[in-house]
Amino acid sequence: MRKGLLFVISGPSGAGKGTICKGLTEKSNIDLSVSMTTRKPRPGEIDGKSYYFVGEETFLRKIEEDGFLEHACVFGHYYGTPKAAVMENMEKGRDVVLEIDIQGAMQVRRSYPKAIFIFILPPSMAELRKRITGRGSETEAAINQRLGEALKEVSYIDKYDYCVVNGELQEAVDRTIAIIKAEHSRVTEDVYALIEKYREEL
Amino acid sequence: MRKGLLFVISGPSGAGKGTICKGLTEKSNIDLSVSMTTRKPRPGEIDGKSYYFVGEETFLRKIEEDGFLEHACVFGHYYGTPKAAVMENMEKGRDVVLEIDIQGAMQVRRSYPKAIFIFILPPSMAELRKRITGRGSETEAAINQRLGEALKEVSYIDKYDYCVVNGELQEAVDRTIAIIKAEHSRVTEDVYALIEKYREEL
Repeated sequence: MRKGLLFVISGPSGAGKGTICKGLTEKSNIDLSVSMTTRKPRPGEIDGKSYYFVGEETFLRKIEEDGFLEHACVFGHYYGTPKAAVMENMEKGRDVVLEIDIQGAMQVRRSYPKAIFIFILPPSMAELRKRITGRGSETEAAINQRLGEALKEVSYIDKYDYCVVNGELQEAVDRTIAIIKAEHSRVTEDVYALIEKYREEL
Repeated sequence: MRKGLLFVISGPSGAGKGTICKGLTEKSNIDLSVSMTTRKPRPGEIDGKSYYFVGEETFLRKIEEDGFLEHACVFGHYYGTPKAAVMENMEKGRDVVLEIDIQGAMQVRRSYPKAIFIFILPPSMAELRKRITGRGSETEAAINQRLGEALKEVSYIDKYDYCVVNGELQEAVDRTIAIIKAEHSRVTEDVYALIEKYREEL
């Protein structure tokens, strides 16, 4: 049976990677990986669905055991992608999508280089500003800082295989689905098994 | 403006590359390249549409001028893909598809390495035998020889980027369209222009 593939979707905050991933799970038969974290669940969050909520000791032991595809510590809380669950799904032939930031993606490039890396771009900086501003509450200075960071993040794009400009959401989701479909048609070792089958048939 | 891409579609005779290319032109906005030949037009064939029909002198001069992406001589007649028409279309931002045999594809790998190579596979040798037999008139020995050649051709698959198994035609066409769409989302030099635009915007 053909193994599943691992797709890493990242991009600057505000580019809409979360919305695209949500669209993917709705329109295709793909699993979104569930992260593990040491932060406390917020109201409405479900353990094993929103996150796997664990204690710091458990998380640190998992790091020791090389149990993460990537992990990071943000504002004192750990976040990471547990390797085992992703690998099991792929063994079963299912594709897995990781929605992670650029630092996480760079870690996955080392821990699982066969992953396919997709960068989500905003259609323009003006549009990104509008999206960040639209969330309210942030000062002009904070918004400018976020835009500066976004620009820095975009410079990592050459480490990615594909980029999808998220102007119209449905178009961006369809494009991502096309990438997933195309990657399943790549000439890989699987093809050689097929040729061997042809040879035996003759 | 974004340039068009060149897609080379080939595979053993009977795999259905012609039918897939026809499906492509019907379902997408893509140009099928028109070959040049020195053979005489058959009834119903239109110059400039079925082929560009030319004399041998013209063809040989074009070879001299390096005017072909690929060319071959089959049963005393020359066939080739004129470079200029393909390049002009791509400059205008249009994608071009070449439906050619494996030898031709290997020539394009040298003359235009940026092309994207798609191999069309039959679902099985039994099915390929059925398709060849279905065309009637060929002897058992001739059919076996053709299947042996098909198997030899399939061994070139590692020179291709993608393979599409042509079991159900519509599925194969949709998969090829997904490949074309995905290739337009590849991270290439075009992306750097976009980033530069972002930088200027800030």
